[in-house]
Amino acid sequence: MLYPVWVNGSKHERVDPADRGLAYGDGLFETVRVEAGRAVLLDQHFSRLETGAASLGISLDMTSLRREFQDFIAACPASCIAKIIVTRGVGGRGYLPVPDAVPTRILSASETPAWPSVHTDSGIDAVVCSFNLAIQPALAGLKHLNRLEQVLLRREIAEKGGAEGLVCDLQGRVIEGVFSNLFMVRHGRLETPAISRAGIRGVMRASIIQQAGSEGVPVIEGDYGVEDFLAAEEIFFCNSIYGLWPVRSLQGRHWSPGPVTRRWQAFWQQQLG
Amino acid sequence: MLYPVWVNGSKHERVDPADRGLAYGDGLFETVRVEAGRAVLLDQHFSRLETGAASLGISLDMTSLRREFQDFIAACPASCIAKIIVTRGVGGRGYLPVPDAVPTRILSASETPAWPSVHTDSGIDAVVCSFNLAIQPALAGLKHLNRLEQVLLRREIAEKGGAEGLVCDLQGRVIEGVFSNLFMVRHGRLETPAISRAGIRGVMRASIIQQAGSEGVPVIEGDYGVEDFLAAEEIFFCNSIYGLWPVRSLQGRHWSPGPVTRRWQAFWQQQLG
Repeated sequence: MLYPVWVNGSKHERVDPADRGLAYGDGLFETVRVEAGRAVLLDQHFSRLETGAASLGISLDMTSLRREFQDFIAACPASCIAKIIVTRGVGGRGYLPVPDAVPTRILSASETPAWPSVHTDSGIDAVVCSFNLAIQPALAGLKHLNRLEQVLLRREIAEKGGAEGLVCDLQGRVIEGVFSNLFMVRHGRLETPAISRAGIRGVMRASIIQQAGSEGVPVIEGDYGVEDFLAAEEIFFCNSIYGLWPVRSLQGRHWSPGPVTRRWQAFWQQQLG
Repeated sequence: MLYPVWVNGSKHERVDPADRGLAYGDGLFETVRVEAGRAVLLDQHFSRLETGAASLGISLDMTSLRREFQDFIAACPASCIAKIIVTRGVGGRGYLPVPDAVPTRILSASETPAWPSVHTDSGIDAVVCSFNLAIQPALAGLKHLNRLEQVLLRREIAEKGGAEGLVCDLQGRVIEGVFSNLFMVRHGRLETPAISRAGIRGVMRASIIQQAGSEGVPVIEGDYGVEDFLAAEEIFFCNSIYGLWPVRSLQGRHWSPGPVTRRWQAFWQQQLG
């Protein structure tokens, strides 16, 4: 199976060592599930990318990027994970970007991971991570390329043997998973940590919030500790690649996947098509 | 003038788009002043690189890297800025690194910037940056590739017209400059912000601390606000590229370069050779 890589629309497949994405993590990325040749939640991915580029001052031509991405997907296996990296490009003196920098576009694809079906069906055993996220409101929400915290967190849950983990910020608020967002049901209502000081505003998270809002039962975004999740009726992780994983155990507490979790798993199946 | 680029010891000059340095900023860098063909403060640069690699779990062969860097410098103009980027390499599933990842080495060179001599002679007009650093003790000190904060800060001082700026963390402590460390003289003693929660432990900073300690007058590393700097007898920025810049003005206060600043400028001249 061929998984292509396009750099700035060409197949030369190599990046300039002076690219600011490499030098400083000066860029953004999206990881998109492709099923039956169709990119899942594509509008939401491009919407987040546009927001991030505006926030960092990277001038992206969204229309042509989107066209290029569609051409790219057509060259990929029908089922795969497609990744978009956009950087500020090459140039500038040290940290200072040049105003007319031309963004670098890197499109790549990889095999869709084969997660154990038990993750979706019965749920996962989650851990609480001991590594904590820094608080940086200016960058919170963005899927930028500064991801050392996630690398260290991903290693931590691998060492602990958890499929996912609750990640807190340095003030003890639960923010997200290592590669997911996190929801819980409390008193029958869907709640999720606010992503205002740390964390990534996930595309699946945004889709759930949008859909729930359009049905007149808005998701509550708030500040929570681990104890709030332990007291919840349901907990699930989600992202735009695997969908939803119920939490079946956390710190000695146990759950069976509840009706709200199942309802949003059905929503994910609709997106998958 | 030729400024070479070596990627993993070869001159093919291109980086794999799947490199983790690009994907996540999963790596480290050093920027080294080269004068008359000699790398200035080289032991300190390699010492910091070794500390950083150990901290991130990147297994670097320091001896062969150092040999390669010496060969690289021999291929560079006698005066230049040589940059070392080391990443965890290619591979892993998402954020999770593979344990046997082979680090990527990128050596590049560029022209030594021509700073105005007035920066060194009379000092600079410094600003206080409004963008604040996140607090992350686990990464503080390291010169890792997650530098979006510095990109945004560098743009801020360019917009404000300052040569350098005092950068505070989100709790209001002064940490460093945008691309420098920061010292002050208070009550005749040399003090500098502790780099324990945010910031980079600069090579020039480390050299001053080491030299002062060996002379029996240790530098005090503490927590300071902007008001402490405003009340100081002397302030200077330093890094291992330009040396020392006295601060001649900050928020309406004015200084002339003092004897302690001049003494450490002489120390820098010795390092330059």
